[in-house]
Amino acid sequence: MATILILGAGVMGSALAVPASDNGHTVTLAGTPLDTQVITRLKEKGGVHPKLDKPLADTVTILDDREVTPEHAAAADFVIIGVSSPGIDWAVRRLNDLLRMRKPVAFVTKGLDRQGDRIVTYAETLPGLVPNIASFIGIGGPCIAKELSNRFPTLSIYASRDRVAAETAAGLMRTPYYRLAIAEDATGVEACAALKNFFAIGVSAMQTRYPDRTRADGQSKNPTAGAFNQAAQEMAALCEYIGGVRATAFDLAGLGDLHVTVGGGRNSRLGHGLGGNRTVPDVMSGELAGETVEGIDTARIVDALLRQVDDAATRFPLATAITRAVTGNGTLDFDFDRLFGW
Amino acid sequence: MATILILGAGVMGSALAVPASDNGHTVTLAGTPLDTQVITRLKEKGGVHPKLDKPLADTVTILDDREVTPEHAAAADFVIIGVSSPGIDWAVRRLNDLLRMRKPVAFVTKGLDRQGDRIVTYAETLPGLVPNIASFIGIGGPCIAKELSNRFPTLSIYASRDRVAAETAAGLMRTPYYRLAIAEDATGVEACAALKNFFAIGVSAMQTRYPDRTRADGQSKNPTAGAFNQAAQEMAALCEYIGGVRATAFDLAGLGDLHVTVGGGRNSRLGHGLGGNRTVPDVMSGELAGETVEGIDTARIVDALLRQVDDAATRFPLATAITRAVTGNGTLDFDFDRLFGW
Repeated sequence: MATILILGAGVMGSALAVPASDNGHTVTLAGTPLDTQVITRLKEKGGVHPKLDKPLADTVTILDDREVTPEHAAAADFVIIGVSSPGIDWAVRRLNDLLRMRKPVAFVTKGLDRQGDRIVTYAETLPGLVPNIASFIGIGGPCIAKELSNRFPTLSIYASRDRVAAETAAGLMRTPYYRLAIAEDATGVEACAALKNFFAIGVSAMQTRYPDRTRADGQSKNPTAGAFNQAAQEMAALCEYIGGVRATAFDLAGLGDLHVTVGGGRNSRLGHGLGGNRTVPDVMSGELAGETVEGIDTARIVDALLRQVDDAATRFPLATAITRAVTGNGTLDFDFDRLFGW
Repeated sequence: MATILILGAGVMGSALAVPASDNGHTVTLAGTPLDTQVITRLKEKGGVHPKLDKPLADTVTILDDREVTPEHAAAADFVIIGVSSPGIDWAVRRLNDLLRMRKPVAFVTKGLDRQGDRIVTYAETLPGLVPNIASFIGIGGPCIAKELSNRFPTLSIYASRDRVAAETAAGLMRTPYYRLAIAEDATGVEACAALKNFFAIGVSAMQTRYPDRTRADGQSKNPTAGAFNQAAQEMAALCEYIGGVRATAFDLAGLGDLHVTVGGGRNSRLGHGLGGNRTVPDVMSGELAGETVEGIDTARIVDALLRQVDDAATRFPLATAITRAVTGNGTLDFDFDRLFGW
C-alpha cells in the first residue's frame, strides 16, 4: 500500500480519494484556501462532501490547507493536484512550498498555456515551474467526478513521457470500476483535455439550435452527431499542432471525454444558450453568472493558435465559430454549409 | 440537372428524394414489392410518406415496383439503392433486370458478407453480382432519414474507389443542409456503416445498465462515454481487419454514425433491453417483435470474424460480449474490468 496526497478538495480531487482509499492506500485529502467550507463539512463526523453528496471513507485524512506541511509531501509516494485551471498558479506555488524532494505528480487540471508564440500544455510548462516534479502525469478521459465517487464504471487515461511513472500511478489508482489506460503522449492528453471543453461548447449548441419536438428530449440528432464528428477531426488537427499525437484525440482523452462533456456541465450549458442564438455575455451573466467555464479560457488561446494557421476559417470552421463568439462577445455563427465545399 | 432513380421507398430512400429534388433533378422514387402501401399513399394527391409524415415534392415521380422498366434505368444518370440489408438480394436481381448499360449506383444498404472464409463488405461483393454497376458508391455517416427529410443539417460521406464517381454523385446530392464528404475507402465506409449498428447495441446497453436517478434522463454518463470510446477503438481495428482504412472509423462513417445510432433506433432499443440484463430473445420477442435489427445479423458475421483473430476476447471485449449475447441468446456479459489489465 502507498501514501497518496491529494491537493484540492473540489469534486475531482475528492472523487479520486474514492478509488485511492478503496485500494487501501493511506490517503490525505487537503483543501485549497477556496475549499474551507468543504473541508469543514468533511471533517464533521459522517460529514458529506457538499457537491458529491456523500462522505469519504473514514480512512481518508482530511486537512485544511494550513495543516498541510512538507512532511505530508515527503511521506507521499504520489501527489495528485485536483484544482481546476484558475487554481493552477496557486498549485505551482504550493507544490514549491511543499515538495522538498522529487515526487511523481499527477494533474487533473486542464488548460492550454503560451510560451512566447507557442501554444503549449501543462506537460510543457509545469515541470519547469516545479523542479521537484519527478514525473508529470496528465489525467484525461471521460470522467464525471460524481459518477466516479459513486463507483460507476469509468475509463480514464494516465499519460506521462515517463511510461513507468504512468504505469505506477495507474497501478495505484486502478480499481474494478476505475479503469486506467496509460500513454506516453502527455502533451496530446493535456491538449485534448483542454480542447474538449472548448469543442463541447460548439457541439452542445447544436443540441438546441435544431429542436425536434417529436423527440422526448426535444433534440434533433443529425446536427449534433455531425458537429461531434467535426469537433473530433478539428481536435485531432489542433492536438497535432500543439505537439501531441493525432491518435490521442481519437481515444479516451479526446472523443471519449468530449462525449461525456457534451450534454452535461458548464461548457455544455454555455453551448445550449449559444444554440438558442444568445450571446456569450448574455449566457454568462444569466444562468452561468459567477461560474467558471473552462472552455472560454481555452477559446482565447485557441484563437491565438488559429491566427498562426493558414486558412484557419476553412480548415477549422467549428473552432473558428467558437473563438469568434467568445472573443467577439457574440452569437455562435456556425453553419454546416461551410463544410465539404460545394 | 440530372435524372436520378431511387429504388426503395423506405425512410432512407424516400428521404434522399428531398435533397435530390431540392437540387432540381428529375427524381423517380420506386417502391420495392414491400413498399406497396407507401407507394399507394405517396401517389394520392398531397399524399404523405407514412413514416416521414410529409409529402415529397410534386416533381418526384412515384412508381410501384411493377411500373419500373429498363427505360427508367437507362434514363438515369445515377441510381440509388435505398433498401435495408434483408432486401439486398432483391436489389441485386432487380438491378440485373433493369440495368441494360453501366451506371453509377449508390447504396445506403449496410451489412457484412462472406466470401469463403473472408469477411467482406458490399463494396467487394455487389460489383461482381451486378456487372452493370459502373461504380459502386457506399453512403455512410450520421443520417437519421426523417431528419434529412426535415432538412436538418446532416453530414454524410459518399465513398467509391472511383473518386470521380464519388465526387460526381456527391455533387448531384449536396445541398446547404445535406453536406457530403467523399472518400475512396469504400470498404472502410461500408464496414463501419455495418459495424456501427452492431456496436450501438453494446454502447446503448450502458445507458440503462448504470442508471443515475439524479439526472433528468436517468442515465449515468461515464459508462456510456467509456463504452462509446471502446466501440470506436474496436471498430477501427475490425475495419482494418476487413480491409478498410483505420482512420475511416474515426470519422463520419464510424464514430459519427455511431453517435447518432446510440440512443435512437432499433439497435439502440435492443441495447437498452440488454442493459437491463434481459436476453436477446426476450427483447426481440417483446418490444422489438417483428422488427429487423440489423446489428443482430452483423453480430453473427462479426462472431465468425472474431474466431479468426488471436486472443479476440481480450482485444475485442465489447464486440465479444455482443456476439456472445446474440449467438448464445443470452444477456450482455460485459464488464469494464476487462479493460486495461490490472
